[in-house]
Amino acid sequence: MEVQPKTDNPATRGPVESQLLRSDGRRDDELRPISFQNGIAPYATGSTLVSWGNTRVICGVTIDEAIPRWMKEQGVPGGWITAEYSMLPYSTLDRKPRDISKGRLDGRSQEIQRLIGRAMRAAVELDRLGPRTVWIDCDVLQADGGTRTAAITGSYVALHLAIQKLLADGKLTSNPLSDSVAAVSLGVVDQRVLLDLNYEEDSKAEADMNLVMTGRGEFIEVQVTGEQNTFSQLQLESLLALGRAGVNRIIAAQNAALGTRPTSL
Amino acid sequence: MEVQPKTDNPATRGPVESQLLRSDGRRDDELRPISFQNGIAPYATGSTLVSWGNTRVICGVTIDEAIPRWMKEQGVPGGWITAEYSMLPYSTLDRKPRDISKGRLDGRSQEIQRLIGRAMRAAVELDRLGPRTVWIDCDVLQADGGTRTAAITGSYVALHLAIQKLLADGKLTSNPLSDSVAAVSLGVVDQRVLLDLNYEEDSKAEADMNLVMTGRGEFIEVQVTGEQNTFSQLQLESLLALGRAGVNRIIAAQNAALGTRPTSL
Amino acid sequence: MEVQPKTDNPATRGPVESQLLRSDGRRDDELRPISFQNGIAPYATGSTLVSWGNTRVICGVTIDEAIPRWMKEQGVPGGWITAEYSMLPYSTLDRKPRDISKGRLDGRSQEIQRLIGRAMRAAVELDRLGPRTVWIDCDVLQADGGTRTAAITGSYVALHLAIQKLLADGKLTSNPLSDSVAAVSLGVVDQRVLLDLNYEEDSKAEADMNLVMTGRGEFIEVQVTGEQNTFSQLQLESLLALGRAGVNRIIAAQNAALGTRPTSL
Amino acid sequence: MEVQPKTDNPATRGPVESQLLRSDGRRDDELRPISFQNGIAPYATGSTLVSWGNTRVICGVTIDEAIPRWMKEQGVPGGWITAEYSMLPYSTLDRKPRDISKGRLDGRSQEIQRLIGRAMRAAVELDRLGPRTVWIDCDVLQADGGTRTAAITGSYVALHLAIQKLLADGKLTSNPLSDSVAAVSLGVVDQRVLLDLNYEEDSKAEADMNLVMTGRGEFIEVQVTGEQNTFSQLQLESLLALGRAGVNRIIAAQNAALGTRPTSL
Amino acid sequence: MEVQPKTDNPATRGPVESQLLRSDGRRDDELRPISFQNGIAPYATGSTLVSWGNTRVICGVTIDEAIPRWMKEQGVPGGWITAEYSMLPYSTLDRKPRDISKGRLDGRSQEIQRLIGRAMRAAVELDRLGPRTVWIDCDVLQADGGTRTAAITGSYVALHLAIQKLLADGKLTSNPLSDSVAAVSLGVVDQRVLLDLNYEEDSKAEADMNLVMTGRGEFIEVQVTGEQNTFSQLQLESLLALGRAGVNRIIAAQNAALGTRPTSL
Amino acid sequence: MEVQPKTDNPATRGPVESQLLRSDGRRDDELRPISFQNGIAPYATGSTLVSWGNTRVICGVTIDEAIPRWMKEQGVPGGWITAEYSMLPYSTLDRKPRDISKGRLDGRSQEIQRLIGRAMRAAVELDRLGPRTVWIDCDVLQADGGTRTAAITGSYVALHLAIQKLLADGKLTSNPLSDSVAAVSLGVVDQRVLLDLNYEEDSKAEADMNLVMTGRGEFIEVQVTGEQNTFSQLQLESLLALGRAGVNRIIAAQNAALGTRPTSL
Repeated sequence: MEVQPKTDNPATRGPVESQLLRSDGRRDDELRPISFQNGIAPYATGSTLVSWGNTRVICGVTIDEAIPRWMKEQGVPGGWITAEYSMLPYSTLDRKPRDISKGRLDGRSQEIQRLIGRAMRAAVELDRLGPRTVWIDCDVLQADGGTRTAAITGSYVALHLAIQKLLADGKLTSNPLSDSVAAVSLGVVDQRVLLDLNYEEDSKAEADMNLVMTGRGEFIEVQVTGEQNTFSQLQLESLLALGRAGVNRIIAAQNAALGTRPTSL
Repeated sequence: MEVQPKTDNPATRGPVESQLLRSDGRRDDELRPISFQNGIAPYATGSTLVSWGNTRVICGVTIDEAIPRWMKEQGVPGGWITAEYSMLPYSTLDRKPRDISKGRLDGRSQEIQRLIGRAMRAAVELDRLGPRTVWIDCDVLQADGGTRTAAITGSYVALHLAIQKLLADGKLTSNPLSDSVAAVSLGVVDQRVLLDLNYEEDSKAEADMNLVMTGRGEFIEVQVTGEQNTFSQLQLESLLALGRAGVNRIIAAQNAALGTRPTSL
Repeated sequence: MEVQPKTDNPATRGPVESQLLRSDGRRDDELRPISFQNGIAPYATGSTLVSWGNTRVICGVTIDEAIPRWMKEQGVPGGWITAEYSMLPYSTLDRKPRDISKGRLDGRSQEIQRLIGRAMRAAVELDRLGPRTVWIDCDVLQADGGTRTAAITGSYVALHLAIQKLLADGKLTSNPLSDSVAAVSLGVVDQRVLLDLNYEEDSKAEADMNLVMTGRGEFIEVQVTGEQNTFSQLQLESLLALGRAGVNRIIAAQNAALGTRPTSL
Repeated sequence: MEVQPKTDNPATRGPVESQLLRSDGRRDDELRPISFQNGIAPYATGSTLVSWGNTRVICGVTIDEAIPRWMKEQGVPGGWITAEYSMLPYSTLDRKPRDISKGRLDGRSQEIQRLIGRAMRAAVELDRLGPRTVWIDCDVLQADGGTRTAAITGSYVALHLAIQKLLADGKLTSNPLSDSVAAVSLGVVDQRVLLDLNYEEDSKAEADMNLVMTGRGEFIEVQVTGEQNTFSQLQLESLLALGRAGVNRIIAAQNAALGTRPTSL
Repeated sequence: MEVQPKTDNPATRGPVESQLLRSDGRRDDELRPISFQNGIAPYATGSTLVSWGNTRVICGVTIDEAIPRWMKEQGVPGGWITAEYSMLPYSTLDRKPRDISKGRLDGRSQEIQRLIGRAMRAAVELDRLGPRTVWIDCDVLQADGGTRTAAITGSYVALHLAIQKLLADGKLTSNPLSDSVAAVSLGVVDQRVLLDLNYEEDSKAEADMNLVMTGRGEFIEVQVTGEQNTFSQLQLESLLALGRAGVNRIIAAQNAALGTRPTSL
Repeated sequence: MEVQPKTDNPATRGPVESQLLRSDGRRDDELRPISFQNGIAPYATGSTLVSWGNTRVICGVTIDEAIPRWMKEQGVPGGWITAEYSMLPYSTLDRKPRDISKGRLDGRSQEIQRLIGRAMRAAVELDRLGPRTVWIDCDVLQADGGTRTAAITGSYVALHLAIQKLLADGKLTSNPLSDSVAAVSLGVVDQRVLLDLNYEEDSKAEADMNLVMTGRGEFIEVQVTGEQNTFSQLQLESLLALGRAGVNRIIAAQNAALGTRPTSL
């Protein structure tokens, strides 16, 4: 099921011919097509394959009926959510060696999986999870930019499916999800503020942003980075405005894939 | 495209009603359904998702235009083929921790990836590969027994696709594949000799066999193991006979998926 | 030499008696005292011990007259800057085990050292560094919140001192520093937007921000995170406004410690 | 005590002059001399140094009066047997670096030690071992081919000695050994089927087999591998026939070394 | 507070002009200046920065209110003292990579930290420590020879401060320190026996000694090593005599820094 | 060939009946029996199995025709000698886990192998070795105290054999050995100074010494350690005197095993 998110930012609804299109033919505020193939890993409690342009990420949720040692030791009630992120070796044009071949997780993967975990925890009431750990595993099947935001967006779908299954199985009696979560990347490329960078755009961006938001329009995480560059207050505001509009459309695609209605604002 | 391999072993073509069926309704000499979804990882040079009953393995082939250090040091001509095997965390009903979380590859994975590499090398004339390394990566998406034989069977399909691409791109001028390769598992369960064990059967087998053969009917690898048990000469002969017949049907499924004709004998 | 940064945000210059003070007696927009002890590690090319309230970080800059392998392989001109961050075992009230005792760098340290490296690179013209690697090492001697922003702020001072030495020694002929860099943390605590969180405030914040900026008022990095919480557009804007004002005062402290004048805007 | 196993395969009992001898003067079905020096490591519960031609392996059995964690967690009754295999650095003409210097066990060693463990477990009734772990350590002192089959053959001798000691000490009340175990390697070299390959033969074999059997003539493990080659059904049958005969003679050598009588068939 | 230890060896009290001074102007039996900055790491239970010529080491003592697993398992009463030693990356003129970047502690550091732990344990009645572990961490800020002896000397000061705090806090009811501990390095350089080698002298020494003694003049550790050289009985005796005199002066400096009186002999 | 070293210390030649014998019947100045089984590992360039009471260590010397990277980089002429030490798992009454199972070399092994390497280098003119690395591997087969001194003593024998072979093969044209090397342990037990401690004595020693000396009576290494104890000047002198006499007898045993005459003094 593919949902082609529509543009709805009035600021960019000018006549197409007056705009300089991006290398893949998109307007500055246009998302790539997003779709979800739910149930890709049937032994997971919830799973989806999110396809986002040429980026494809498998998101699988599994449940461990135990809590981490530190929660036990500190007597923290409720459950926990943790995430792991990895790129499959054939996800990039040049083979990406597995972490195990170097004996350690690389810094970028560690950063991303910490972000995914935080993003999911922000949308869940952990004390309603019960004494269990929810594992969210994201494996990139194809990488064309935006793998971390695709992973977050897909993780929410897989998590939602897993929660539904736990509710259906009677393992949960009330829904611990407080809101939906989606993410998008943006960047400043040649001084233009662009939504949803592909790999080519990402690799030459002066600044890039990752934005994680909820269905109700609250922020979970804002990360803006100037790699060997700086960015201005004005650019920061444009990125935020464009990103907020983008996330709304992504949440609509999630709702369609899950058969849920939008969170009322 | 799904190919339902047929039974063709005369010894087992008796009336179905006279046989005790297996827990999933199969006869002793019956394979589970096998299908291939080629191109699952578009950035790989060749890739397929092999589905074999409930077992699903992603096989991706990537090319490194360099040879291993030991080949350089020893002056060995031609190229090399190497394999890596891993189970995705959500491939089993209880989450399987990633190798990197323990800091080392487990013994079983190492054994399997060595087997996959040997199996592929046996069917390729390495000196016609040119000075490059062919990486074969197998990631199990769902594990219901027979993941290593599914990985070998899928790896051959992905390798075949990769070789076709290298030929089409002019990177190879002649086909280094000397034969096709397929594999199947078998076992002795409750003193019955069974083809293609699923997880439940595998976990109670008195002996289990992995058989790797070529399209021309030659053997590449025979492994028979009695785990806390022994097996007799007669059982060994039955396993071999049943396995040979099974491999023939698997090779037919590969040919159908690749649009190739059987290897002439 | 200790510089007590002054508050200068008009929005907060109300009579002190009308404000609810923080647990350590500060107003919401007030920084802790910041000072620098330059030359703490005499064998480093540049070094400082930054004291920021009860947080103390040793920043040492050393020079390796070679560039990383990937730069050589990719033919990238110029030099490189990289950072490492670690907490000394006695920097916390409960002893913090060394990374080596667990055999791997923890995710938080890796995230911080990547941030420090990016922050410094954003302020340096790498192609004017020459073919060398600048190592920035930050070791926390005492941790009371804000260690990553103290590390960035101190790293700039140590880097400035190292560049001055390289210029004095004739190893550099022009100054590769394009701007100064400073950072500050902020947070939303009990729905109040606070500047420069100490450990106690940080551990109960609903959202926290790390802001890295230049002397000219450009952004290098904005990170805002809701840990098990979300935050609003309005809160984000307040954090940004308060943070910008705070960074200005920190840059003044750096200039005083270095005997430099403010970057002209 | 050295036992020179005799040839007893009628098919090869022709006049010696009509046969092409192997490079070390043996007939195709001839074993190298095998001997055992029991008690080589007096602090082990059982130990032997097996000498097999120029291959020498120290096998030591030690007892840990506890069971592995997984057995406890799963409530499995009885005991466990596990093996470790390593090549001493001076066992090969070019020094073999220790595993610890690379930080990980190599794949080949892991494969071999898993095989040794399985082979021993197949001959022991684990529930009669009591709640203890039997460790079998094999260290190669000199490597001239067939180290894994020498290790299995020697491990059985060391295990037998250890069991006798546990019985004598009253730690076991009944003998958990259900049969004896021996192993031999074979191969196809220049299309000749040879028993008991030395290193030179092994390195040019088209296919090689490792065969593990019991004193009663049952199979424990059959592994046949075509390294960059395939082998035929006929070759497989010849290997099996020659191997069975070879194992019988090895078992006789074990019995002599242990002062035991052959297992009655 | 800097204490300039005086020379008191009669054998060397000749007129200065008759002696060949060392490259830094010292006589053969002269120590470099030693001083202590106590409280350098305020969150530690006891800490000092020892400056010894150009060598500077941070020593921090922290308390873990638990004992090591092996003590629990073996039922050993009392507490334990353990040490870790590390060189900060900017402590040497060429940056010293962190242990974690190589994934393992180097042999030299391991040797030194074992020595520090033994030295401190020899001066403490462990059964009067209570069931706790005293961690002694030594981090070298500047390395100009003698870092291990400076670390031992500083560790005693930090340990003394920590014990005083535990006594003041009522966590200890009697003082477990049985004596003070100090250490010094010596060497044979160009056949001259020298006290307290700096880096330049150390790197060309024919033999070097590390001497650890108590305030009462007992030995804790004597290590004399000829690196690619041997040394004679006479040289050994000269080293011991010179070292004993040196340690006395170092203990005086410790007493001054701690405000304690010398241990009565 | 076993050589029973004789006692020759006049101070201890009193009537035996007047002395309190040690638990194994030895006098205070008596060595355990020492013997060497040369050629234990025939593929090594030189090897021996040293038996020293119940302590048995395999020493194997292998040659790598290359020098370490650091020698190349620093342009150091000549060759290098390095050592590795390990305890085989069955060398102790409780199985000693292999280093690789913990992923790192333990501190004690590292300390010992550094000592062995230094001891051998002190007796060799490295610039006459040629551009090669001599590896000395010591593996303990049975551990009853004194494994490090047995390893050093056996390493010299194996090294001597290896040098003879290199000379015989024409790979060396002059003998780089400048002297022989032997070592012995001693200790203070119940205030008695004892030569050559066994495990039981070692585990209750108040102080223990390891002494490495040459055939000419020069010292290579003196290590005296009070574990949770101190020792006096008088005890140190007694240890040295007793040790010197002991080493002389060990060197005689080496000469006998090598068929060499004592080094002329």
